[in-house]
Amino acid sequence: MRKILIIGAGKSTSSLIKYLQDKSDTNNLSLIIADKSIDNAKKFAGKNQYTKAIALDIFNTEERQEAIKNADIVISMLPARFHVEVAKDCVHFSKNMVTASYVSDEMQALDADVKAKNLVFMNEIGVDPGIDHMSAMQVIDRIRDKGGKMLLFESFTGGLVAPESDTNLWNYKFTWNPRNVVVAGQGGAAEFIQEGKYKYIPYHRLFRRTEFLEIDGFGRFEGLANRNSLKYRSVYALEDIQTLYRGTLRRIGFSKAWNMFVQLGMTDDTYTLEDSENMSYRDFVNAFLPYSPTDSVELKTRMNLKIDQDDLMWDKLVELDLFNPNKKIGIKNATPAQALQKILEEKWTLEPHDKDMIVMYHKFGYELNGEKKQIDATLGLIGEDQTYTAMAKTVGIPVGIAALKILNKEITMPGVLRPIHKEIYTPILKELEDYGIIFKEKETEYLGYNKHTVVG
Amino acid sequence: MRKILIIGAGKSTSSLIKYLQDKSDTNNLSLIIADKSIDNAKKFAGKNQYTKAIALDIFNTEERQEAIKNADIVISMLPARFHVEVAKDCVHFSKNMVTASYVSDEMQALDADVKAKNLVFMNEIGVDPGIDHMSAMQVIDRIRDKGGKMLLFESFTGGLVAPESDTNLWNYKFTWNPRNVVVAGQGGAAEFIQEGKYKYIPYHRLFRRTEFLEIDGFGRFEGLANRNSLKYRSVYALEDIQTLYRGTLRRIGFSKAWNMFVQLGMTDDTYTLEDSENMSYRDFVNAFLPYSPTDSVELKTRMNLKIDQDDLMWDKLVELDLFNPNKKIGIKNATPAQALQKILEEKWTLEPHDKDMIVMYHKFGYELNGEKKQIDATLGLIGEDQTYTAMAKTVGIPVGIAALKILNKEITMPGVLRPIHKEIYTPILKELEDYGIIFKEKETEYLGYNKHTVVG
Repeated sequence: MRKILIIGAGKSTSSLIKYLQDKSDTNNLSLIIADKSIDNAKKFAGKNQYTKAIALDIFNTEERQEAIKNADIVISMLPARFHVEVAKDCVHFSKNMVTASYVSDEMQALDADVKAKNLVFMNEIGVDPGIDHMSAMQVIDRIRDKGGKMLLFESFTGGLVAPESDTNLWNYKFTWNPRNVVVAGQGGAAEFIQEGKYKYIPYHRLFRRTEFLEIDGFGRFEGLANRNSLKYRSVYALEDIQTLYRGTLRRIGFSKAWNMFVQLGMTDDTYTLEDSENMSYRDFVNAFLPYSPTDSVELKTRMNLKIDQDDLMWDKLVELDLFNPNKKIGIKNATPAQALQKILEEKWTLEPHDKDMIVMYHKFGYELNGEKKQIDATLGLIGEDQTYTAMAKTVGIPVGIAALKILNKEITMPGVLRPIHKEIYTPILKELEDYGIIFKEKETEYLGYNKHTVVG
Repeated sequence: MRKILIIGAGKSTSSLIKYLQDKSDTNNLSLIIADKSIDNAKKFAGKNQYTKAIALDIFNTEERQEAIKNADIVISMLPARFHVEVAKDCVHFSKNMVTASYVSDEMQALDADVKAKNLVFMNEIGVDPGIDHMSAMQVIDRIRDKGGKMLLFESFTGGLVAPESDTNLWNYKFTWNPRNVVVAGQGGAAEFIQEGKYKYIPYHRLFRRTEFLEIDGFGRFEGLANRNSLKYRSVYALEDIQTLYRGTLRRIGFSKAWNMFVQLGMTDDTYTLEDSENMSYRDFVNAFLPYSPTDSVELKTRMNLKIDQDDLMWDKLVELDLFNPNKKIGIKNATPAQALQKILEEKWTLEPHDKDMIVMYHKFGYELNGEKKQIDATLGLIGEDQTYTAMAKTVGIPVGIAALKILNKEITMPGVLRPIHKEIYTPILKELEDYGIIFKEKETEYLGYNKHTVVG
């Protein structure tokens, strides 16, 4: 039996464990689910003859090293900042390792040691980062192999609620960490390049600079810029590309409505509100509006945000019960962002029967034999239920595939890796198709910015 | 001869030195102007029999201590962060000290030592902080002495261009550190209290939440909120006050126009622009606008900021030559704020004949014998020229007065102080009148927010 140690059992671990359990018999696998909570580990392990649950405190060096020493490969599903301790042990005990997280500087620093021991440390092998890398590089490499020159790459990913569970005016529910959604885009201007021009969008304008996209069979979405697109120039070897833009997908209208919170100042996470614990939802709104002895919070909000009588934006605010004077924030020393999260979680939490959805859209513009061309590749995936969500599948299954292929020596490239190499992404994308993770490609007219220019 | 050591000779030192030189003969004073540049020290010393210039590197402990040991009192006009080293020496050698800067935590920490040696360390004795403290506390103490209860305190200060030198569409020129103007209001929401309600204004809305004020003889101004008004509750012993708001004065329309820069993202000081050195002013604007192969930067700007054909806002941008494709930013790795500062300095620098102006407006709302009352106190001061500016006078003269009164033992209260005590501010405000720094007071109808409430 070959032992796969999975450290950290969270939301996206369900599909990973199922994938590996389904393969345990044929591949001679033994799974060890290690979590700080033995009950949590047991829950994820289930009643499966090939799976064992153990309690593991990753800050206990002895416990951690004992578990890693006994494994044949290690999958870390811990929060990203905790990977590096595991990684150092993996180097020490010569174990291969897989994570779904961005390569941190500390992780990158292990590259020489990892290579010296001929180990594979696969990272960024979830959905975003992960499936986005693989599906993009597959098309980019194909274009290059034909002799094409990349002109434009735009890529968008969204974690959303499935259409059948889309029951609110925002067309949104939390399918992942709500905090990340509330503070998304903060910490600096969004920076990207369009037709060779660097562009910067400050946070307070970000949610009004979206573009619309359609994914066959899934409807229309809007894309808004991620913070730093430019780092992908080096990751994808697109140093000379004229247009590079990465973004997030939401249903049409979400960003314009979300912008109301941004404009009021409700998404700020840098200071705490006075007496936030006893603040009502209505007080919270009022804290961002001028004082008036006579005018209602409602009218001040309409005035402040310029919401006309017949504007659906208003109903979106009312749907959240934002003007309720009786519901309390109930959190001590809350930042505005924490207070807003509380209000949103009450309305945007998935119901037990709700399903989630992952959507992805890549645009590849290129020139081949003097002609400008474009390929669009799209993915849409609906979750099965609240265990095997689209998010859990798109994170967990590629992690599982990568781990098994490394264990089976089908992937052998040594180093601290991302799945951007042909010999890595090709077999993984192929197997992902068995799980319904399939990109649809179509060639379209080149839609870069300089094809048709009519000055009028 | 009693020796006054003045460390650091900058813009606001001119009036300080003139004040003390004028008093040297009658008060038996000898002045030592110490600056890292001997030429600069000499320039400020001038040809005056009572004044000597010396070179002093404040990071050279021996030099610094030698100078301080030989003085009878020390005035530090250094940048605020450098005061503390001087202050420690002053404690060591038992010298009194004066600064115009906010009391830092490090300075406050010396309070017990300062008191133990019966020394006076006077701080915040310039204009803002300084004259604002004294003029406010004088009225607040008077109201309290009569048995009145403070309901409202609003206070606004502005450093502006004098009306006779006000020659641009912005009604603004830099009369102090330009950088502070460009990044003003950043770093967190403005926080204050109105009628017992805490209010928060995010930076990107700050410049649209102004109120208009009139100062007799000086015209109309607009006030915009400073970042933290609430700390003045403890400084002024106004813990229970219902309304406390501190702000900055600009000429009407400045803030609405400045908001264009804020909205575009041009005031951001947290990241650097790609190839900023070779960026033209026009490129700089375009970096914050969507790409278009056809539309002009001008039209995109109008569209982005919703500037109609007949809106004067447009002329304000044009006046700055913002769309010039030939003028370069010329600064390596510039932040947007640094690039904007460069553009503004070209147009907003004072001409040799230009004069500056300091304006201040306090509102005091209070209840006395069951009646709500209000006192408004205003100050307007025009500079003489570019040496004896209103800024230099309002910073330097109170510093000089305080130093001399400490030296003459007219001010003897020991400790790390602000001029918020009657025995300190009364004689200083009295003498300031000789220099034209005179507040006009008038009683007005109480204009707090809850006097007349008509719900319609």
